[in-house]
Amino acid sequence: MRTSIATVCLSGTLTEKLHACAEAGFDGVELFEPDLLASPTSPEEVGALARRLGLSLDLYQPFRDAEGVTEPELAAVLHRARAKFRLMQRLGVDTVLVCSNVGTATVDDDAVSADQLRRLGDEAQAHGVRIAFEALAWGRYVDDYRRAWRIVERADHPAVGVCLDSFHILSRGHDPAEIAQIPAEKIFFLQLADAPALTMDVLSWSRHHRLFPGEGSFDLAAFLAHVLDAGYTGPVSLEVFNDTFRQTDVQRTARQAKRSLTWLEDQVARRPLRSRRPDGPSRLPDVGQPVAFDFVEVKAEDAGEVDEVLRMLGFTFRGHHRSKPVRLWTQGAARVLCNEHLAREWAPTLAAIGMEVPDPEASVRRARLLGAPSVFRRTRAGEQDLVAFRAPEGTEIFFAEPSLAEPTWVPEFDGGEEPGGAPALTIDHVNLAHPWQTFEESVLFHTSVLALRSQGTQEVAAPTGLVRSRVMRSDDGAVRLALNVAPVLDRGLPQHVAFRSPDVVAAARAARARGLHPLPIPANYYDDLAARFDLPAAVLDEMRELGVLYDRDESGGEFRHFYTRTVGAVFFELVQRDGGYDGYGAAGAPVRLAAQHLASAGR
Amino acid sequence: MRTSIATVCLSGTLTEKLHACAEAGFDGVELFEPDLLASPTSPEEVGALARRLGLSLDLYQPFRDAEGVTEPELAAVLHRARAKFRLMQRLGVDTVLVCSNVGTATVDDDAVSADQLRRLGDEAQAHGVRIAFEALAWGRYVDDYRRAWRIVERADHPAVGVCLDSFHILSRGHDPAEIAQIPAEKIFFLQLADAPALTMDVLSWSRHHRLFPGEGSFDLAAFLAHVLDAGYTGPVSLEVFNDTFRQTDVQRTARQAKRSLTWLEDQVARRPLRSRRPDGPSRLPDVGQPVAFDFVEVKAEDAGEVDEVLRMLGFTFRGHHRSKPVRLWTQGAARVLCNEHLAREWAPTLAAIGMEVPDPEASVRRARLLGAPSVFRRTRAGEQDLVAFRAPEGTEIFFAEPSLAEPTWVPEFDGGEEPGGAPALTIDHVNLAHPWQTFEESVLFHTSVLALRSQGTQEVAAPTGLVRSRVMRSDDGAVRLALNVAPVLDRGLPQHVAFRSPDVVAAARAARARGLHPLPIPANYYDDLAARFDLPAAVLDEMRELGVLYDRDESGGEFRHFYTRTVGAVFFELVQRDGGYDGYGAAGAPVRLAAQHLASAGR
Repeated sequence: MRTSIATVCLSGTLTEKLHACAEAGFDGVELFEPDLLASPTSPEEVGALARRLGLSLDLYQPFRDAEGVTEPELAAVLHRARAKFRLMQRLGVDTVLVCSNVGTATVDDDAVSADQLRRLGDEAQAHGVRIAFEALAWGRYVDDYRRAWRIVERADHPAVGVCLDSFHILSRGHDPAEIAQIPAEKIFFLQLADAPALTMDVLSWSRHHRLFPGEGSFDLAAFLAHVLDAGYTGPVSLEVFNDTFRQTDVQRTARQAKRSLTWLEDQVARRPLRSRRPDGPSRLPDVGQPVAFDFVEVKAEDAGEVDEVLRMLGFTFRGHHRSKPVRLWTQGAARVLCNEHLAREWAPTLAAIGMEVPDPEASVRRARLLGAPSVFRRTRAGEQDLVAFRAPEGTEIFFAEPSLAEPTWVPEFDGGEEPGGAPALTIDHVNLAHPWQTFEESVLFHTSVLALRSQGTQEVAAPTGLVRSRVMRSDDGAVRLALNVAPVLDRGLPQHVAFRSPDVVAAARAARARGLHPLPIPANYYDDLAARFDLPAAVLDEMRELGVLYDRDESGGEFRHFYTRTVGAVFFELVQRDGGYDGYGAAGAPVRLAAQHLASAGR
Repeated sequence: MRTSIATVCLSGTLTEKLHACAEAGFDGVELFEPDLLASPTSPEEVGALARRLGLSLDLYQPFRDAEGVTEPELAAVLHRARAKFRLMQRLGVDTVLVCSNVGTATVDDDAVSADQLRRLGDEAQAHGVRIAFEALAWGRYVDDYRRAWRIVERADHPAVGVCLDSFHILSRGHDPAEIAQIPAEKIFFLQLADAPALTMDVLSWSRHHRLFPGEGSFDLAAFLAHVLDAGYTGPVSLEVFNDTFRQTDVQRTARQAKRSLTWLEDQVARRPLRSRRPDGPSRLPDVGQPVAFDFVEVKAEDAGEVDEVLRMLGFTFRGHHRSKPVRLWTQGAARVLCNEHLAREWAPTLAAIGMEVPDPEASVRRARLLGAPSVFRRTRAGEQDLVAFRAPEGTEIFFAEPSLAEPTWVPEFDGGEEPGGAPALTIDHVNLAHPWQTFEESVLFHTSVLALRSQGTQEVAAPTGLVRSRVMRSDDGAVRLALNVAPVLDRGLPQHVAFRSPDVVAAARAARARGLHPLPIPANYYDDLAARFDLPAAVLDEMRELGVLYDRDESGGEFRHFYTRTVGAVFFELVQRDGGYDGYGAAGAPVRLAAQHLASAGR
């Protein structure tokens, strides 16, 4: 499957974009006209640079307001088209995107549009180029790909075909199944974009909020399957207008874009396709979802305060690593590493997450094929081989085999105590705080590399602004990552690890006895609980005393949880799920965020 | 007119919000429940703090999902309501906002809703409080203020009235004129919010994009007039959910909010009102719009490079200020000050704009009443008194009387040359680059303080992201400020001053002869001009040679312009308007931004 990307997806100058696309492994690019106009590089240089970088120039775009016009206007269109066709010859690009008329159309007649496209086609043919006609979702008259195809069919010109764009088709809810009725040789080009489910005018949605495949809510695997089944063999090209990607690092965004197509190709390859071709979509290694958390690691120059919090939560100190300044704490299946190796000036930070996966080697191969950046950690003979990948917000992700008892790396630690005592915990979820600009990349990373599934986005008010939160989880809920997006001006959102306990109130009381001061929760919160739920006074009093929060879902499932104070940039939570409660206590989140804000200000 | 503001409008903790509201001069606040729940401050303390600060607690809000429910659900509603009414007693607040049911309503019947509100009203009355019922724009059954009033009328209970919210009414396009049919004593509360004209689901629009009056596109003066004409005498309260205001400085946002009500009150006072009351809206001093730019000032530790650019543009050096290290350059009515006073480590920056206004003293009084921050500049005996106000992005705004010839402050400069020579220029517009978080504040500032009118927003692609741009102008176009919003990650957007010339091509040629190297414009841009417009080859060649850009509007009006390179954080533009062209060459803006990006990278 040949991959391409429109230069408008990326930040930077045209030459920076071309370099980034080549480095990310794309086969070609769509040249977005404004990128060329703003470039001091001549068309001949652009063509030569692309060839040197191994990129084909697959499409020149867009040519606007071409058809449905009056005869005098058509003369100006043909004048403009001839200049652009000559430019395409200089560039060495043979297809131009002509989108349906938005600005100047006054004639709503397939016959007229077909005739005008045919005349444009004659000009194109004379210049050795061809026209891909696309229905914009907001075209004045032509806003449906089926009508665009009817017009192209009627134009009946070898240099005139259609361009299909997933956004324009799926945003309008048009059925992509009818793509199969278009002859393959008349599909001149294919553009893909994902998008979040938004209810807004389609032009703004398109111009600002498009996403790479896997980041939004369109079923692009089904869409692409329809196009491939029609026999399309041209490039699969991304055209993603997105306010964030326009300003983030060009190389990183290009790699993210390429990853989205690699993932999508695998998704399509797993579907039954009518037309199998040698260059059809290829599959990634089969990996299941993670089956459990293996460990979390906190890195710090001095992790002593974290050790202390873990001790008060009932964790057992299991010893020092035999070759590195790393300490292990466990409680049941919850394992926390305190790593002081190469951590100069690190405040305590969540640095790594271990995942138990069915086939770690396959997971590593898959991550590599998806271009996930790998992390190098020195190991010694006899120690577990450590292969890790860096998630977009910086956390390292390790893969290990599922372990019924303790994992085989635990004996690398010695000098500690035997486990036991406090009730066993598991890691329930890990909360990864993000700056706003890596959120979409993270959704794609965890979808494609870890095969986690994305849930809906929630918003929670903090004193410093709205925090956006989306959970990525395995279907059985054994592994859950909450991606939290900090307000733009707030650089201080901490990460956190939530441990699941069978009895949070008892755990809170035991922790208190060991000296823990949990995050203080305001009395006003408990007055509201009393108003909302029929909780016995004694139960409420105990929660109030221990700083335990409470939530109940519609079917009566219950959630009890409490938080430690923040140490450096990390804190811990203990949660208890009863009666099938499957959320995260969103109602308490603003209370927690405000309490942390006050605590960080020393109030 | 009593002013109030909902705590949800602001960032920070509840006590920070109360302090900021009091300092900004509000008479009261609406207490947003989540702010109280997340606060360690007890209800009694909150009430006492508000009283000490001179703030009334005008409303407790919101109470959700109260009516249209089944009888068993109503029992839970009444339980919850009793707890909240007791809480209101502890706080010392007598009105609660009950919004129309979104989540639990199953009965779509005015009689049932009226009956349930009546029973809530009995409980309220027993606690000495009252209920203001509001139709949410997205209420499941009740989504129109007229239906909310019908229900309240039917409930016929002294403790049950309506709350009117401009957003819920105007966002749905409901006619506010029918407010006049609601008896004044049954309008228990009034909430105001402005909003931009967006086409999106009303819930997201409401939760993220509300604005303070004067910042959006609602006609709030007409709306408020309807409410006052109905005889309403309660507080006029802002309820603005906005993602930006939730994270910006609480004191600054509170002052901005207060300014919006001061401006709105003046707007209403200028309308014919049926009901005039002693505490009705009051007027600001009458000021017209600015009639011309007086000067612009560039501040720099070393402004030598700016001097040089001005000289090459044909400006005359008019001398040094007699008491400060400030130099004056003029060309016709275009006056530029190069100020090196107290400018240590300043790169050249646009620091101040002088405006000629009909009555400078009235403008100063108006700015003070609007809470515009004033700027102190030392003057000496015999020098012009300098009164200035700081616009939100930092530029100082000075007021002066209109001058037919040169202003009276020019003779403070000596040692320069006589003006003349190059064709006279005027200042056409000034372009103020903003970080994203001060844009709305600036729209309000220039609307209220300078009486400029806001035009629509445009977006322009730069290599570093999308730049948003909105022009604020006087009706006759003599004074125009373009507010440009930089992409979030781009801290380097420069300011610029555009001078209007009768002949830009001649001016560019003369400047070239004096040694100016204009911003280089790519050849590709001119190839596109040739495709789009029927310009003679010689004309195109001359523009290409001189770096002059070109635009044409739909009625044939023409725009020619060129840019200097950026010096520090400022650059200059020369523009020529012919045939009624009234824009700013938006088509060339991406080309200019890319050229500046390349120039700043030294390419």
